Amino acid sequence: MSYLVDINCDMGESFGTYVMGRDEEILDYVTSANIACGFHAGDPATMRKTVKLALEKNVGIGAHPGLQDLAGFGRRVMNISPKEAYELVIYQMGALNAFVSAEGGDLQHVKPHGALFNMAAKDANLAEAIAEAVYDVNPELVLFGLSGSELVKAGKAAGLKTANEVFSDRTYQSDGSLTSRTEANALITDANEAIQQVVRMIKESNVTSVQGDEIKIQADTICIHGDGAHALDFAQNISSTLKDSEIDITKIKNIL
Amino acid sequence: MSYLVDINCDMGESFGTYVMGRDEEILDYVTSANIACGFHAGDPATMRKTVKLALEKNVGIGAHPGLQDLAGFGRRVMNISPKEAYELVIYQMGALNAFVSAEGGDLQHVKPHGALFNMAAKDANLAEAIAEAVYDVNPELVLFGLSGSELVKAGKAAGLKTANEVFSDRTYQSDGSLTSRTEANALITDANEAIQQVVRMIKESNVTSVQGDEIKIQADTICIHGDGAHALDFAQNISSTLKDSEIDITKIKNIL
Amino acid sequence: MSYLVDINCDMGESFGTYVMGRDEEILDYVTSANIACGFHAGDPATMRKTVKLALEKNVGIGAHPGLQDLAGFGRRVMNISPKEAYELVIYQMGALNAFVSAEGGDLQHVKPHGALFNMAAKDANLAEAIAEAVYDVNPELVLFGLSGSELVKAGKAAGLKTANEVFSDRTYQSDGSLTSRTEANALITDANEAIQQVVRMIKESNVTSVQGDEIKIQADTICIHGDGAHALDFAQNISSTLKDSEIDITKIKNIL
Amino acid sequence: MSYLVDINCDMGESFGTYVMGRDEEILDYVTSANIACGFHAGDPATMRKTVKLALEKNVGIGAHPGLQDLAGFGRRVMNISPKEAYELVIYQMGALNAFVSAEGGDLQHVKPHGALFNMAAKDANLAEAIAEAVYDVNPELVLFGLSGSELVKAGKAAGLKTANEVFSDRTYQSDGSLTSRTEANALITDANEAIQQVVRMIKESNVTSVQGDEIKIQADTICIHGDGAHALDFAQNISSTLKDSEIDITKIKNIL
Repeated sequence: MSYLVDINCDMGESFGTYVMGRDEEILDYVTSANIACGFHAGDPATMRKTVKLALEKNVGIGAHPGLQDLAGFGRRVMNISPKEAYELVIYQMGALNAFVSAEGGDLQHVKPHGALFNMAAKDANLAEAIAEAVYDVNPELVLFGLSGSELVKAGKAAGLKTANEVFSDRTYQSDGSLTSRTEANALITDANEAIQQVVRMIKESNVTSVQGDEIKIQADTICIHGDGAHALDFAQNISSTLKDSEIDITKIKNIL
Repeated sequence: MSYLVDINCDMGESFGTYVMGRDEEILDYVTSANIACGFHAGDPATMRKTVKLALEKNVGIGAHPGLQDLAGFGRRVMNISPKEAYELVIYQMGALNAFVSAEGGDLQHVKPHGALFNMAAKDANLAEAIAEAVYDVNPELVLFGLSGSELVKAGKAAGLKTANEVFSDRTYQSDGSLTSRTEANALITDANEAIQQVVRMIKESNVTSVQGDEIKIQADTICIHGDGAHALDFAQNISSTLKDSEIDITKIKNIL
Repeated sequence: MSYLVDINCDMGESFGTYVMGRDEEILDYVTSANIACGFHAGDPATMRKTVKLALEKNVGIGAHPGLQDLAGFGRRVMNISPKEAYELVIYQMGALNAFVSAEGGDLQHVKPHGALFNMAAKDANLAEAIAEAVYDVNPELVLFGLSGSELVKAGKAAGLKTANEVFSDRTYQSDGSLTSRTEANALITDANEAIQQVVRMIKESNVTSVQGDEIKIQADTICIHGDGAHALDFAQNISSTLKDSEIDITKIKNIL
Repeated sequence: MSYLVDINCDMGESFGTYVMGRDEEILDYVTSANIACGFHAGDPATMRKTVKLALEKNVGIGAHPGLQDLAGFGRRVMNISPKEAYELVIYQMGALNAFVSAEGGDLQHVKPHGALFNMAAKDANLAEAIAEAVYDVNPELVLFGLSGSELVKAGKAAGLKTANEVFSDRTYQSDGSLTSRTEANALITDANEAIQQVVRMIKESNVTSVQGDEIKIQADTICIHGDGAHALDFAQNISSTLKDSEIDITKIKNIL
């Protein structure tokens, strides 16, 4: 028996003359690309270029809508209403989808970005609004959310396929939530340890919390990072280790 | 024999707490609505609301992409490349289209806004880029341009249906261009005179230039304004006068 | 013995072609103008025009810095750090101050806007950062805050003059905070009742909470609103009633 | 006899999480820093940080106002009115000046950025508006403009000190203008050739145009670049070569 997993990465985060990430190289190691849609990062030129690259490399394309906060890269919590979330998501999905259509491709998924992702993991009303937005634009799309989160639940309730996302480089609490970045032990800095955590999440649906408990976790897709000094090394490393562990890496459409 | 014409109006130009235009009322007198897409005006909430209203009133929906200049309402000429124009149009069309899809409707047309409209009337490269953008997203859409302009030519060349737009309240030069707004005689301020100019453009395909020449002009669609003190009165007036003149007002899809 | 009070109003909230407020008329009834600085509302042209008007009418000029959220008018809580608050305030104060200098006037005060005002009322760290920003640019300025709030405390601690602001049209809780706008009884809709509450706050330093308690409150400046159908009527009404009640209306500089 | 020259560089062009330039290192080789003010690049945090660095390294601080076009980095010509230019410059100067004041320093100069710099070199009305803005905020400031340009003339006419700027890496036309970047021979790619052109401009007030003519040129300040692979090497190289050529590098305040 073999295991299947998707690897996703945030992409298309350049803006105007500002360059971010090594998208072209990292695309060789991922199966799903979350492309920024111009609110927290990205712009029309970057979206078009990134969509083209993803199609060339046969990587699943996702809209990666964020809060309208370019200055804060969409990472600052903002008190938006579910109605506003619905509208932000529709707008950004549509913008990206037009580039995908113009290049002859199909949108595969939607993954909210940064603070919107985190807020939707816990806030059922926000999660429901986002799920409805995705469904209303295209009920065939896959909704990505933190594994076991309100967003995944809302996606299922809305009738969408959902992908439970796990993090290789973050530690977990016994309630299944990520350890806050403000805690000292939030990050797993050792690459091998990070990858072994992933392998175990995929094969055993288990992870050891920082409190030492064994908790159940579903791992449909793994989030890796596209910038930083070691992003590319890590992408290569996790990709080859997963293959060596009888885990096939394939785009989420082929898994769900 | 009866004549057909479309009446279009720019809509959805509110932004955040800022309100502009009397969209709901003016929609009763137009057959095509050009909805701002968030770059020069409009925002996701306004787009959604305006799309809903247009669908309720059976008005054809158009994307109204503009330059990324909210502070200048997209009216300031910017030196953008054809590539940038292509990308701006794709992005904005897509964003609006998602709201239309989510509401169960279909996009009918695209009309560039303000400076982009004027630049595309004269610059063949820019016009071509815009026409390609529209075609690449959906070849069934109608492209609106100034009657006889480079944009209309580019739209035809790209394989799109095109709508030649005329203005009721603007005077024309003998070369078919609009008299610049910086000229004293640019505007027709008398409502009856404005409407009679339109009737003649529709029935005789003729207009008298400020130089006194008779020039040929094709009038598929008439642009009226949605804000200003007399916008609603004028809309009622032109609508009833056209009907009295055996001119049927119908959305552009039914004319081309 | 006579009483003194300042009346302040938010101003300069137009943006580009979007018009908001009746600044020119309302300036006849206020002694301090809080001028938006381009982040939540306002733009360079509006700032210049509003500064000129305020100087002509001898109204004290204040910077009214807000969150960088034009789409939400600075009313949506955002999770910014004290460092970010410090920098936002410096930037916006400076921008406005340059217009005041260019017109030959002097800046009188600073009042944070919307969500920033509310956050700074309760969050001591944010309040301290804002007070430091004001002090670092000009220690002679007056800092406006909700009466009794953390912002007023932080301003005093930083060595600034502070103005305790009260609201005519809002009800108070027994702990001195404003009743949340989400509550049914948050607003006082009867103009006379609103004005009598103000008169009592000024003369007796007392207000009756919604729970029926008498609470102490300091009223250095009253906030009135510049838009809405009855803004001008209310401004006239409160102005004449205060004068009839032996309360002199004068700019905050003359009170503290 | 010794010669004096100022070396200036654009700085503070990072935005949010986007990093641009090697400001800290390049500051060791320049005497005047043109700091972006948040319209075409830069943000409050970057402005503050860059101001601090420049003060620590005793580098003259200049406001570097640009067009409101972050997506185009202020390089796209926009058709703004002189009034708009006046207001944009006041706003941005003020914002930067507040950070300088808060850090206990003084603003030295103003240099418009990108398209605004180029437009103001040729358009006398725009140049006059910008010069007035600078004068109205602080008549002691130095206005930087292309050597011999309309902006320098307008600055003098307004009563400002002006700095004639020359480029090391650009070729000149016989009319004294820069060769357009769209021409093949616009750039001098050989570092030594570039530096020798500068030495001659400083010592002989002469430059050889691409047409082979000797033209008069005044060189008060040299513009170098802060990003690109070789920016730092070039900065070191030009700095040491000028010193070896009996040219003292000192901030513009000490020259004019």
